[in-house]
Amino acid sequence: MNKPMNPITITTFDWVPEVPRGYVRDIRVRWALEEAGLPYRVKSVPFDARNAEHFSHQPFGQVPWLTDGDISIFESGAILLYLGERSDALMPTDSRSRCETLEWLFAALNSVEMASLPWSIFQFSGDTGDTPGWKRLNEFLKARLQHLEPVVAGREWLAGTFSIADILMADVLRLVDRFDGLAGHPACRDYVARATARPSFVKAHADQMAHFAAAD
Amino acid sequence: MNKPMNPITITTFDWVPEVPRGYVRDIRVRWALEEAGLPYRVKSVPFDARNAEHFSHQPFGQVPWLTDGDISIFESGAILLYLGERSDALMPTDSRSRCETLEWLFAALNSVEMASLPWSIFQFSGDTGDTPGWKRLNEFLKARLQHLEPVVAGREWLAGTFSIADILMADVLRLVDRFDGLAGHPACRDYVARATARPSFVKAHADQMAHFAAAD
Repeated sequence: MNKPMNPITITTFDWVPEVPRGYVRDIRVRWALEEAGLPYRVKSVPFDARNAEHFSHQPFGQVPWLTDGDISIFESGAILLYLGERSDALMPTDSRSRCETLEWLFAALNSVEMASLPWSIFQFSGDTGDTPGWKRLNEFLKARLQHLEPVVAGREWLAGTFSIADILMADVLRLVDRFDGLAGHPACRDYVARATARPSFVKAHADQMAHFAAAD
Repeated sequence: MNKPMNPITITTFDWVPEVPRGYVRDIRVRWALEEAGLPYRVKSVPFDARNAEHFSHQPFGQVPWLTDGDISIFESGAILLYLGERSDALMPTDSRSRCETLEWLFAALNSVEMASLPWSIFQFSGDTGDTPGWKRLNEFLKARLQHLEPVVAGREWLAGTFSIADILMADVLRLVDRFDGLAGHPACRDYVARATARPSFVKAHADQMAHFAAAD
């Protein structure tokens, strides 16, 4: 008797409102798996009724999480690192390039997204006026983009070759671009354009859009 | 002739204003190195005049970065992961516990700090009034703490044994606690207390305070 197949599984919501479609973080994992050419399937959990089993896999009640055999892992950054260790299409293996991948992967999440995601919350709220907190948050993001600009002007991909660091950084910057926040940073905008032109992103994005549309 | 010693080196600022003292991110790296018992030295770069060499190591003009032989790596999360791979005092080695460490390490930075650091920017600005953006940001943080509360109530350390995930999560929560943001979350507060009672944190904190005081 053959052992049952147990492919890598991404779990995401069954449905989300229109606004976040195309931006739900399962796209990062879909994109990585497409780049690596690893087979996977997608499962859904209810958006409206998050149960104890959901919280046992993702303690914040968010998505995605990934299962692979007896491993269950949450946080898109952790999942991408886990996949990067399985495929050198996602992370170079020499120690210096691996360190470069790690530092840029964390930079995407902890230097850029830590500014950009709260910034987008204010954009969604239409609350971008004259308050001191907003001004500091806006300056925080602009400073990060200003320093990122010469980096992505000077190289095609952050760690030399395309890697999980680019999946995260490009996905983080896409949301800034949605609110025209890259207008003063043409190299950042070009970087997003070349990352999202990759067939693996195009497929991941189309698949996510179709997944949520199927639930309407 | 002996080869020259080339210990692990943390680079931080020579001086910072009073407010961030005790919270500059070199404390995360000091803490990890103390836990691991790895020898290290601390170098300084000017806070006021950040030069090209600084940006070549840390493209955002921040600190810390770490050098180890011919490796130079920035982002506190990446540095801690790099050190975790050198010492099982910082990261368990079996694959399941390693995944738990990774997911909680990213959760500290990308689920909790992504809410808490912008929240602290508003606290520092005294801008915690009635605007829709601030209210959403405050709810964002509260939701994350509410889900973290039963996790740290139910276990001593996030990945079973003490790890780099705890260094990051405890350091992230310390800044929330500074503004009394853990008042409704006693298990989070207790978790910070037990992490910061560790001799390695106490030494790292004292060393950072002494480093900046020496420059006054």
